[in-house]
Amino acid sequence: MTQLEAARAGIITEEMKLVAKDEGLTPEEVRDGIAKGEIIIPKNKNHRHIKPYGIGKGLRTKVNANIGTSSDCVNYEEELEKLKVAIEAGAEAVMDLSTGGDLDKMRRLVLKESSVMVGTVPIYQAAIESRRKGQPVVEMSKEEIFDTIRKHAEDGVDFVTVHCAVTLETVERMEREGRILGVVSRGGAFLIAWMKHNKKENPLYEYYDELLDMAKEYDLVLSLGDGFRPGCIADATDRGQIQELIIIGELVQRAWEKGVQVMVEGPGHVPLQQIEANMVLQKRLCHGAPFYVLGPVVTDVAPGYDHIVSAIGGAIAAWHGADFLCYVTPSEHLRLPTVEDVREGVVAAKIAAHAADIAKGVKGAWEWDLEMSKARWELDWDKQIELALDPVKARRMRGTRPPKEEDVCTMCGEYCAIKMIRG
Amino acid sequence: MTQLEAARAGIITEEMKLVAKDEGLTPEEVRDGIAKGEIIIPKNKNHRHIKPYGIGKGLRTKVNANIGTSSDCVNYEEELEKLKVAIEAGAEAVMDLSTGGDLDKMRRLVLKESSVMVGTVPIYQAAIESRRKGQPVVEMSKEEIFDTIRKHAEDGVDFVTVHCAVTLETVERMEREGRILGVVSRGGAFLIAWMKHNKKENPLYEYYDELLDMAKEYDLVLSLGDGFRPGCIADATDRGQIQELIIIGELVQRAWEKGVQVMVEGPGHVPLQQIEANMVLQKRLCHGAPFYVLGPVVTDVAPGYDHIVSAIGGAIAAWHGADFLCYVTPSEHLRLPTVEDVREGVVAAKIAAHAADIAKGVKGAWEWDLEMSKARWELDWDKQIELALDPVKARRMRGTRPPKEEDVCTMCGEYCAIKMIRG
Repeated sequence: MTQLEAARAGIITEEMKLVAKDEGLTPEEVRDGIAKGEIIIPKNKNHRHIKPYGIGKGLRTKVNANIGTSSDCVNYEEELEKLKVAIEAGAEAVMDLSTGGDLDKMRRLVLKESSVMVGTVPIYQAAIESRRKGQPVVEMSKEEIFDTIRKHAEDGVDFVTVHCAVTLETVERMEREGRILGVVSRGGAFLIAWMKHNKKENPLYEYYDELLDMAKEYDLVLSLGDGFRPGCIADATDRGQIQELIIIGELVQRAWEKGVQVMVEGPGHVPLQQIEANMVLQKRLCHGAPFYVLGPVVTDVAPGYDHIVSAIGGAIAAWHGADFLCYVTPSEHLRLPTVEDVREGVVAAKIAAHAADIAKGVKGAWEWDLEMSKARWELDWDKQIELALDPVKARRMRGTRPPKEEDVCTMCGEYCAIKMIRG
Repeated sequence: MTQLEAARAGIITEEMKLVAKDEGLTPEEVRDGIAKGEIIIPKNKNHRHIKPYGIGKGLRTKVNANIGTSSDCVNYEEELEKLKVAIEAGAEAVMDLSTGGDLDKMRRLVLKESSVMVGTVPIYQAAIESRRKGQPVVEMSKEEIFDTIRKHAEDGVDFVTVHCAVTLETVERMEREGRILGVVSRGGAFLIAWMKHNKKENPLYEYYDELLDMAKEYDLVLSLGDGFRPGCIADATDRGQIQELIIIGELVQRAWEKGVQVMVEGPGHVPLQQIEANMVLQKRLCHGAPFYVLGPVVTDVAPGYDHIVSAIGGAIAAWHGADFLCYVTPSEHLRLPTVEDVREGVVAAKIAAHAADIAKGVKGAWEWDLEMSKARWELDWDKQIELALDPVKARRMRGTRPPKEEDVCTMCGEYCAIKMIRG
């Protein structure tokens, strides 16, 4: 049974208990959320040793870090270091998006080393291996795509991005309106090229039932990818994107009918004033399925700082309903991220998630800030550092400019307002 | 005549012309905004060589960087380096908040070196010098406070923070409700201590007319400070804060009656879900006067990353009406910022300001992103870097991991979606 089937049957699984404990909820609350499809627990039946996290309504907003090689940078050790750093910084999920080197090796290393859920985008491997066989990407077969997904599931991957709603209808609608930046989803781009070349419907859409059967076998979560994710704010919330979302909503219901856990992927690049509408639309069109957003990036002009740009968007998105934030690193739009980029990206996304959790009233969020505020009033610096999201950095920064009097900091020194008011 | 008096008389000053050009507006539009009090141009009559910027409705959101010594860190050269870096990174204003060393020397150096408007908080100097004379802060005289303000005005300071609405009534109301973190404004703390000790009303409130006369003489902008700025999200939007804002609204109108330019300072620490309400309240209670916010910081738990925390809050604040963002650096709550902190703080605030400008439809904001998006579609990397908010960092990051094929980056390498879609 999948977690969804168990929940519907009234069963409380071990994973539900652990998630309930982690969130300060009752196991029944978690089970009921899963039964409705509003909560998922991504944990492949073949992936035994990870700490399960829940994603969805009423739970803490979770953070994913993308790692993996690229065709230009293949360094397995560096990617494993990124994995370690991402988890240390608080990521509850990692996606291995490798596109360079030995893809099976990298994925299996990540699965082995990760203590948190692992996601992948199998279409990358299908396309790349097609090419490595000397066969153009557009000539890969439906079987090659599905076999790759099965290989990932068999290895223990907990969730896979599948761009099932990139359909001929959606492509046509997008092209009729026109876009500034076309398609920026790699999976989407592979599939569109395939569909155009073969003059056929997307096999992930056409054989969706087969995909559902496979997902069910492993309790593999389908993360319904947004191939029409806008690549710039000018393309946000356009017909292609919303048409795809409508179809994703239909696919969510078909997954639920078969007892398969699903979540929905979302943008992308979205200006501030359109974020809330995007969240409302997804929740309504997808009947409350968990929403996993990348960013959103709220301006295109700050390469080098896209972790900050997307912390702004992510906070607003999560406040209005996004359940799962994919981090963006300072390297986005420029290069494959470094280990330090990964750390900064995760921290920025954690800040966005927590700021949103305060706003949406997630259990325990407000209390954390309250404790910190009390420690500030007490001028209790050890406690402040202990409570910090990143205690190591907080301690280091304070330590590099130590104050003359231990109870203050060098910003205000003896003119510390709190000290004056406390008297 | 002040800019406000000139605007009311239908005169278009040289400063109005420069601001109009900078914003892509007509001089008449700028003049009319100034006449209504919705726009200010802070430029002291004694401060000749700066580039004037407008702050207010319909204009780009501006950014201020706080610099200055503290009692624990006195290094004039470092502060001047911060000034330089802040302006390079795009700050349209700096405040010299020095509290250590030779305060007159530091301020005059900043005024001399700055190419942008300069603000100060004269009460700091009045309090510190009182103490240096061996006289407790609470025994400084009204004359000592006003003489310090006049000295700053005479030196050419363009705007001063004056906590005129920290009144006995407000203190009482705040204390009746209770707070987690009391008062975190240093100016507010000095004045409250003074009022309690002397059992007298705040001289900046009692002799406000005198202050207005002085401001008018120099066309010094009064930045009506929020002594009750919340120091943690739990204290946000409480009775003390809103009571002070009501009084500030009254003081705004009194300033306008005398032809004095004013803006209003605001929080501080505010959770996401309360930011919009704070902006609406200020705009209504203060009849459209420009709003200058510090942060807002949307969570208390991320010391070391408060530039990101406040970029989230600042973007939402500016979107909903804030006109001027005071940056927050990564060092906030930990230490006096370093030069690098200043740079990071300004960039984060510029990102927030620009994201908000897109959302509120400020002239030229959308077009900048559109140009960048077109450069991305063209895979024109020189153009992308040229258009970046921080071209130096963008170029450096791309350069450290150069791609094998020049038209892509190492994130996707040969599997660049844009390249695939362009064909």
